[in-house]
Amino acid sequence: MLQIEDAVRCLQQQMQPITKTQNLPLLTAAGWILAQEGRAMADQPPFPRSPLDGYALRGQDTEAASKEAPVCLQVVGRVYAGEVFPGQIKAGEAVRIMTGAPIPMGADTVVRQEDSDYGQEQVLIYKGSRPYENYCFQGEDYKKDSLLLQKGAKLGGCEIALAASLGMDPVAVYQKPKIAVISTGDELTKPGEKLMPGKIYDSNRYWISGRLAELGILASYSGQCKDEPEEMAECIRRLSEQTDLIITTGGVSVGEKDILHEVIRRLSARQLFWQVNVKPGAPVLAAVLDQTLLICLSGNPFAAAVNFELIVRPVIGYLSRDKSWIPKRKKVRLENDYRKPAGARRFLRGYEEDGKAWVATGNHAAGALSAMAGCNCLIEILPQQAGAVKGDTVWACLL
Amino acid sequence: MLQIEDAVRCLQQQMQPITKTQNLPLLTAAGWILAQEGRAMADQPPFPRSPLDGYALRGQDTEAASKEAPVCLQVVGRVYAGEVFPGQIKAGEAVRIMTGAPIPMGADTVVRQEDSDYGQEQVLIYKGSRPYENYCFQGEDYKKDSLLLQKGAKLGGCEIALAASLGMDPVAVYQKPKIAVISTGDELTKPGEKLMPGKIYDSNRYWISGRLAELGILASYSGQCKDEPEEMAECIRRLSEQTDLIITTGGVSVGEKDILHEVIRRLSARQLFWQVNVKPGAPVLAAVLDQTLLICLSGNPFAAAVNFELIVRPVIGYLSRDKSWIPKRKKVRLENDYRKPAGARRFLRGYEEDGKAWVATGNHAAGALSAMAGCNCLIEILPQQAGAVKGDTVWACLL
Repeated sequence: MLQIEDAVRCLQQQMQPITKTQNLPLLTAAGWILAQEGRAMADQPPFPRSPLDGYALRGQDTEAASKEAPVCLQVVGRVYAGEVFPGQIKAGEAVRIMTGAPIPMGADTVVRQEDSDYGQEQVLIYKGSRPYENYCFQGEDYKKDSLLLQKGAKLGGCEIALAASLGMDPVAVYQKPKIAVISTGDELTKPGEKLMPGKIYDSNRYWISGRLAELGILASYSGQCKDEPEEMAECIRRLSEQTDLIITTGGVSVGEKDILHEVIRRLSARQLFWQVNVKPGAPVLAAVLDQTLLICLSGNPFAAAVNFELIVRPVIGYLSRDKSWIPKRKKVRLENDYRKPAGARRFLRGYEEDGKAWVATGNHAAGALSAMAGCNCLIEILPQQAGAVKGDTVWACLL
Repeated sequence: MLQIEDAVRCLQQQMQPITKTQNLPLLTAAGWILAQEGRAMADQPPFPRSPLDGYALRGQDTEAASKEAPVCLQVVGRVYAGEVFPGQIKAGEAVRIMTGAPIPMGADTVVRQEDSDYGQEQVLIYKGSRPYENYCFQGEDYKKDSLLLQKGAKLGGCEIALAASLGMDPVAVYQKPKIAVISTGDELTKPGEKLMPGKIYDSNRYWISGRLAELGILASYSGQCKDEPEEMAECIRRLSEQTDLIITTGGVSVGEKDILHEVIRRLSARQLFWQVNVKPGAPVLAAVLDQTLLICLSGNPFAAAVNFELIVRPVIGYLSRDKSWIPKRKKVRLENDYRKPAGARRFLRGYEEDGKAWVATGNHAAGALSAMAGCNCLIEILPQQAGAVKGDTVWACLL
């Protein structure tokens, strides 16, 4: 049967990463992927800068200064941050200077105001400062032409601040993939509505839409469809015109109501695969319709969750150019036992901390939802293993 | 000098966690804090449920079944997911059943369709199923009255799915704190505008607003103010009427342009503290104006960043009831040397992975921004330490 990694590769081969870009005001760009370079147009700081409040002067003038034998300098001006002192400092002169102001020409250091008498016309310097001691060099943060932000960088607080320091606003970002989520099943009732006998509330598309939102993409459509192939095909056809990816849950197994096979035929979509070596959630079905990828997951809540994490997330990572979508895998030491043979690559609800992991103790059925609460990883049990026991090294896929 | 932890405690004592709530459509609630309990109104599943496609029957009727000696049962009806079979199954009877459908009364197991001849009127069963073998018990996921979502839970994909399965839509959530960000400094130019001599681009409020957005809160105001106490005081007074927290950068040291002291006097705000034992960024100034907290950070980019992570984030965590705002601390093994004595609790830009941490090799000046790129933690050097060397165990504060 198809391996998870091959399924992901197959899906990625059908698609290209999003190329469409848009401009965003920098302040609203957190979480987006930069579609341009951020290169320094000038040194930063763009001029030699004072790191403190004091007097800019020539270090050699204050070499001998002490509390007992202060040096007296002529104060020839003052310069605040944002201003430029127009002249040049000569021997015996000083300029009153504030933090962030450009150090005037001729000066090579700044004496702290605490080491002076705060003089206005003339100033007594009690403690000298060596040349370039209190001195921020032009370009010491970064040089002109430095590549500070690579195309494809994800914009967090730090990247937004760097872009700001480069003067970039607005910024070009890649558009996010447009994703639709559809749950199928005649038994599904919309939360908020009254539950009738034989029905349950729909949770799968809430799980998937919620995960998408949690990870940074708002689903452009989230809806529910009856087990009617014609209706479902029409819904998918309509959505495929406006989306890059359609995720469905339910109807992918072998029963009479497993309508997705029929839906794909009706759509004349090109089927990529059906069934993957993963437990729970083996009957994943994937197809391409025009430019849109269709990934149909099991209707069992935990199976749909596992499929989403292992198969859908890497595909979104590729489409969106955002590596944070690709779940991290980590070797962990198991802290409790799980003794059921797998038969396939089995994924268990788990909790990981500092390289240790625990299999959740709740209901492991694929249909159970509540046991996922508090979990932060999926623990993998290989098919050849008859379960796993405390002390075993296993792979965890971090959520 | 005031310790960071005491500064945080002092700030938290001035405030209460947000109590105002609002209702949100469940699909838009990712990242919000739940303001109601999620308790099961019914068992889940609400009825005994078939986990597969097959025939619901009495297990004892098929005990002897085999390929060679199949058992023949009368098919008295069919039931799909979402329906209810109205009758009761008697000895010798079976009901065609699909995954997710309620198991009819009288039946205690489901035989897989693969183990039958798929009969319509009568069915041959080739392999028996023990009572309750293929059988999802009513309430096996969770029982009526179970508390599945605690008030105060953060809504991620899993919690949204659980809320959906409980039928909760819309959900009550706590409002997010309203936060304003102001940068001060006559040298600051707005990104996107032309840079004049002596000026630099404003990055601090982009850093802070970007971090806020990255962590889940959009600043309700982000602006810039001149070094004019009157203008600044007026701006803060106006914002204080609509915000819970105002964060400023710059103007908190001891120079002539350090106007925040004067601003606080003009506002008759109640000063809480000035200066904290942290390097860089010691001159943090905090005050309360009516119900609004005012936290004024250093204007040096890295100092403002350190202050934001260590002091502002825990305060937002308290206000918002969202523990993810409180930075995680972790003991790590240092992998390179940093040999400068601290004099105060010093925080360095660092990178952490699997319990190991590296001090960033770029420019460590408080005014430097670019060295933060790629960092994911702050490494703490204690005042009594003359730096730290490879192999030392140090604390890292994860970003």
